[in-house]
Amino acid sequence: MSSKPEVGVGIVGYGLMGRAHAHGYTVAPHVRDLPCLPRLRVISGRNSEAVARAAARYGVEEWTADWREVVTRPDVQIVDVCTPPGTHAEIVEAAAAEGKAVLCEKPLAAEYAAAATAARVVADAGVPNAIGFNYRRLPALALMKRLIDEGHVGDILLWRSVWLSDEFLDPDIPFDWRFERAMGASTIADLGAHLIDLALWMVGEIVDVAAQSETFTPERSGRSVDVDEASSVLVRFADGARGTFEMARTCARRPCDFFVEVNGTGGTLRFDYPRLNELWYGDARDDDVFYGLRRIRAESPRHPYARDWWPIGQGLGYGVTFVNQAADHLERWPDGPWDPDLAQGARVQSICEAMERAAAEARWVGVREIDYAR
Amino acid sequence: MSSKPEVGVGIVGYGLMGRAHAHGYTVAPHVRDLPCLPRLRVISGRNSEAVARAAARYGVEEWTADWREVVTRPDVQIVDVCTPPGTHAEIVEAAAAEGKAVLCEKPLAAEYAAAATAARVVADAGVPNAIGFNYRRLPALALMKRLIDEGHVGDILLWRSVWLSDEFLDPDIPFDWRFERAMGASTIADLGAHLIDLALWMVGEIVDVAAQSETFTPERSGRSVDVDEASSVLVRFADGARGTFEMARTCARRPCDFFVEVNGTGGTLRFDYPRLNELWYGDARDDDVFYGLRRIRAESPRHPYARDWWPIGQGLGYGVTFVNQAADHLERWPDGPWDPDLAQGARVQSICEAMERAAAEARWVGVREIDYAR
Amino acid sequence: MSSKPEVGVGIVGYGLMGRAHAHGYTVAPHVRDLPCLPRLRVISGRNSEAVARAAARYGVEEWTADWREVVTRPDVQIVDVCTPPGTHAEIVEAAAAEGKAVLCEKPLAAEYAAAATAARVVADAGVPNAIGFNYRRLPALALMKRLIDEGHVGDILLWRSVWLSDEFLDPDIPFDWRFERAMGASTIADLGAHLIDLALWMVGEIVDVAAQSETFTPERSGRSVDVDEASSVLVRFADGARGTFEMARTCARRPCDFFVEVNGTGGTLRFDYPRLNELWYGDARDDDVFYGLRRIRAESPRHPYARDWWPIGQGLGYGVTFVNQAADHLERWPDGPWDPDLAQGARVQSICEAMERAAAEARWVGVREIDYAR
Amino acid sequence: MSSKPEVGVGIVGYGLMGRAHAHGYTVAPHVRDLPCLPRLRVISGRNSEAVARAAARYGVEEWTADWREVVTRPDVQIVDVCTPPGTHAEIVEAAAAEGKAVLCEKPLAAEYAAAATAARVVADAGVPNAIGFNYRRLPALALMKRLIDEGHVGDILLWRSVWLSDEFLDPDIPFDWRFERAMGASTIADLGAHLIDLALWMVGEIVDVAAQSETFTPERSGRSVDVDEASSVLVRFADGARGTFEMARTCARRPCDFFVEVNGTGGTLRFDYPRLNELWYGDARDDDVFYGLRRIRAESPRHPYARDWWPIGQGLGYGVTFVNQAADHLERWPDGPWDPDLAQGARVQSICEAMERAAAEARWVGVREIDYAR
Repeated sequence: MSSKPEVGVGIVGYGLMGRAHAHGYTVAPHVRDLPCLPRLRVISGRNSEAVARAAARYGVEEWTADWREVVTRPDVQIVDVCTPPGTHAEIVEAAAAEGKAVLCEKPLAAEYAAAATAARVVADAGVPNAIGFNYRRLPALALMKRLIDEGHVGDILLWRSVWLSDEFLDPDIPFDWRFERAMGASTIADLGAHLIDLALWMVGEIVDVAAQSETFTPERSGRSVDVDEASSVLVRFADGARGTFEMARTCARRPCDFFVEVNGTGGTLRFDYPRLNELWYGDARDDDVFYGLRRIRAESPRHPYARDWWPIGQGLGYGVTFVNQAADHLERWPDGPWDPDLAQGARVQSICEAMERAAAEARWVGVREIDYAR
Repeated sequence: MSSKPEVGVGIVGYGLMGRAHAHGYTVAPHVRDLPCLPRLRVISGRNSEAVARAAARYGVEEWTADWREVVTRPDVQIVDVCTPPGTHAEIVEAAAAEGKAVLCEKPLAAEYAAAATAARVVADAGVPNAIGFNYRRLPALALMKRLIDEGHVGDILLWRSVWLSDEFLDPDIPFDWRFERAMGASTIADLGAHLIDLALWMVGEIVDVAAQSETFTPERSGRSVDVDEASSVLVRFADGARGTFEMARTCARRPCDFFVEVNGTGGTLRFDYPRLNELWYGDARDDDVFYGLRRIRAESPRHPYARDWWPIGQGLGYGVTFVNQAADHLERWPDGPWDPDLAQGARVQSICEAMERAAAEARWVGVREIDYAR
Repeated sequence: MSSKPEVGVGIVGYGLMGRAHAHGYTVAPHVRDLPCLPRLRVISGRNSEAVARAAARYGVEEWTADWREVVTRPDVQIVDVCTPPGTHAEIVEAAAAEGKAVLCEKPLAAEYAAAATAARVVADAGVPNAIGFNYRRLPALALMKRLIDEGHVGDILLWRSVWLSDEFLDPDIPFDWRFERAMGASTIADLGAHLIDLALWMVGEIVDVAAQSETFTPERSGRSVDVDEASSVLVRFADGARGTFEMARTCARRPCDFFVEVNGTGGTLRFDYPRLNELWYGDARDDDVFYGLRRIRAESPRHPYARDWWPIGQGLGYGVTFVNQAADHLERWPDGPWDPDLAQGARVQSICEAMERAAAEARWVGVREIDYAR
Repeated sequence: MSSKPEVGVGIVGYGLMGRAHAHGYTVAPHVRDLPCLPRLRVISGRNSEAVARAAARYGVEEWTADWREVVTRPDVQIVDVCTPPGTHAEIVEAAAAEGKAVLCEKPLAAEYAAAATAARVVADAGVPNAIGFNYRRLPALALMKRLIDEGHVGDILLWRSVWLSDEFLDPDIPFDWRFERAMGASTIADLGAHLIDLALWMVGEIVDVAAQSETFTPERSGRSVDVDEASSVLVRFADGARGTFEMARTCARRPCDFFVEVNGTGGTLRFDYPRLNELWYGDARDDDVFYGLRRIRAESPRHPYARDWWPIGQGLGYGVTFVNQAADHLERWPDGPWDPDLAQGARVQSICEAMERAAAEARWVGVREIDYAR
């Protein structure tokens, strides 16, 4: 079929993210002309039976119950980390030590310090590395970034971002690791990390934050819940723009509803994930007769990623973000760089931690309190 | 035509609000069977030529350049205050001293202290009194309140409210009183007061706030601008619910876009003003097969106010809020009480002031710091 | 208050349309600077008690049980006909014979022949005359017409129009005149007449039609229903454009949902009545990067009618169509002409009749079969 | 990885549909636990260079310039036909003669007679066979069908379907096979076939049609265009329901916008493809306080297909229809039956042909005129 060089991929973790990343590698070569072909060599997980089933389903050649095996196999060049956040840093560092390229799911770690260390270790190792902010790979969001960069909204004044779900609304949902802060769980990090990444990418550095957090169901299965279920945040950007964030998992009939909006001196851009193939744009300099926002159908061949897919109007879904992510990485194989990298993962983590501290201490927190290097 | 008793109305101020309130009195008797008929006796304004023109246009019998004349005329029973906020308190107090019923536009005053005094004065005078939170009179928002009260969302956990406009985006807009804090101007009070009123009405008392404000164009026409152009706020409600507010007048192609949403233990309700005849509702207990939000067409005869108007589906607009407001007041003539009253106006003012202080001092502010009585 | 000349108005019929028209005259002088002031002199209806109540509610000075009195009163200059369609022609003709200006609700008559005669009689009488196609007076639809006329969609290729309601869905709704063809009732004429008027206005003459009609509940209260409950139609316009119409009153949870769309060589325009303050526009020549439709907020001061009303973004409703209609007529008092006139009413009727015949005979019908003069 | 039996697939045609079907087979085993594993053995196309490139890209093991080779290879069990419609019947029949299972893209043929013959040939051969109505495999449309079958809209009264695109709007698009009727091209068949399939599936048999067609650009590249660019149709269903269809490729800024709606005695269901993860439902028996349509997020685990994919709210796209189609077929391997089968393809073709005849002859056409067997 093809004489392209193969790149061995090992996936650590076989849950939803493991499945999504495997999907990405499976489909990527079919949508873009890549310089190499990924082979899913191995997947790991502690439950042997489950990981064996996952390997068969995801199309991975072998499985193991020991993630260290993934990291050390000579036929694996890319280690893809899809485990709970509290375990990321150790795996990432081990992979980098073996000279493997690393893609790590977000958030990068349970604490900023661990995230920063992991980012520094991979940078020192000189391996391609990336953090899994997959939503950047949606055509509509990538187009939003491009329109901002091209000046279509002028200087950004305001940022607004909200992520609502109902996953924690029911108080009878039993305790699991998502309710345990030590595992790296928190609503700020789980939902918010994506929004923070988008804000840093589209607007720029965040310098100060104020926040509040609430846990409406403080106990589950007789155990204490120490993660926030809902948090909201005010931020000041380095260039003077102001922003808001809200992430909440107690919103009935809101399955996974996030939106982001920027208002600049020259226009407005808005994206609503429930209508993920659309981007709304208003140009302040347009003739007033056409006053309002345009609904851009973000699937034109001139839009990012869209030419790899279907004719305009057919619609893309969540899955394409993982395919585009894999394609972007493989396209730059073997030298990279990959973007966003683990340093961005650490940067996002510093904002998460500033938000948590601001909520806990009920005061404005400078991001430099967390990240002295800034 | 009718043998109903007449009630004389005098309007102080002939700008947009004067026009809107006059519209309300003109149409109210045609949509509801009232115990009395309003007569627009007099309107006042400092510019004689303009107020004379306004009197003719709005259908007011006489005009005057002196607001004190409105307040003292024996044929005026209701004084309707539509001047800039900094002038409200004095007029309100003078009207109450004359035993007149008072409707005052929002915000009630430039400072909480003045608002509280005005509210106390009218209460002591025992006259019917009201603050102009007209959006409560939209069928969709009144329905939202009713559904909350009837338990359709359970206990409220989260409140979210945003008001976006572009009125201040252009830096070449010349200086006028809207940019002058001493006149009672501020984005928090002008746009935010409505949202705060809705939050207090639908959720309950607010106890703590954190806020940020920004003025992107600090000088206009060579004069310094001392009001916020954009503010965002975190709040804690007395019963533990958490909320967010944003009000901004620098959002391109956003003419007057406000929305409010509550998420409760049993459901979600959401209202978007650009689609003002709709209310979105999701019931957490519904069969999952129908998972999502319903778009309630808030014009059914069973909805508040709607039976006074047109058949379902025809659509209502901004004007009806003033008609409904006038009808609600006249319906309770002469004894009242009117709702929301000036005490609610003062309550809202205390929150505005807490938000301003929280932004100015970059810290969480307890509403009790403003309003000791609470 | 004003020294403008007064114009006496008499309304025949006190149902929903009588109320809506009275509302129009009441508010019109407050939104536009008119050359005259309307006075609601008299309203008529066969049920004395009900019409007396209506007079008081609508603000009409006197009432009568005999419509001929309205027509002959010397203090009435405008006769406004709001009775069931089967009675229109006789009243219109009597009013014209008395030299009165006439506004007649749609449809103009139960049959084309009667409509054509009525139109000719008023034309011969030389009185200002109008047919009540009120939706033309919505800012968004008036803007749609203007954008077409200015060439923003190029040459029109396709027209598409649908009107859905659920008023006849329940088979237990008892028989009344709306189910009786002899009274001028039909879904084609009641809902369709508005769509036909918009099509003729925006696109041009219709020359051929094919249609189907259905009555799903053929009997109510033991009486036979001889009107269509749902009809759909194909049309060919004189200039080669093609179009579709559907009007149906058996659509659950569709209260009054109409939309119209044109597709031209240069663009698309679409209007949805449930979001009546918006007009959607796509320009085929726009940069592909912005591919899609714009949501124009049709309330800008530069849009038709909008400057008479509220600031952009506040929203207008059904009621304004009647106010704008009254203002348009009074603005051209006493000479007229008014637009659309009864001749347009007759033209629309000829299309309705062609549609009915096409459905009854299951064949394409040329409009010239109905209207030989064309 | 797996010990499941393999099923060899050969694809005839390497255009967009060839790519989409290959995608389906590639991903299907990863979303559902299938009894067998597909192997993409071979793909054919007349342009050797292009088909070789396609084979590499789509992940097909071998390629050939001769479709007969695909049909006769012993290691191919499923022949998947993705060529222009005019060539389908011959390939389908050849494949069936070799005992291969057949999936054929729609429309099945250029004429009904050929379609009927092909359907009969495969039926006689007793091989699993299917027609590519992929949109049935969208969760939202599959849910719509299920809700109808479960009685959620009662008896269907009205069907409404529209498909708009702008692919033929520009008169400078050069001539190709899509403008040539002899190749099986027509807007009725290309866009309409999907809508017709959905109507037959959801509502039932169509017995009579009236139609109009237009070709606004009758000549391209100096050649005459003999296909319709825009057609609209009225239909009567066997059970008395009425319906409309419109398909048009001259609609500016409408990329691929189709919607379908049914109105029944008990409710309304509506689907808009541009928001393909939503289904709108209104229950006529609901409490009037909730009057309106619900926006069902058609991605719940309880919805068809959705459990194979991502968590609710993440969004699916066009690609999943082909994956679900492949999975549905492979799940029933080797015995079938597959659904919809080629007989349904022929049934749809009979309606297309009736529509074409009705337009050409400007009269109502009974479907039995085309398909005597009915």
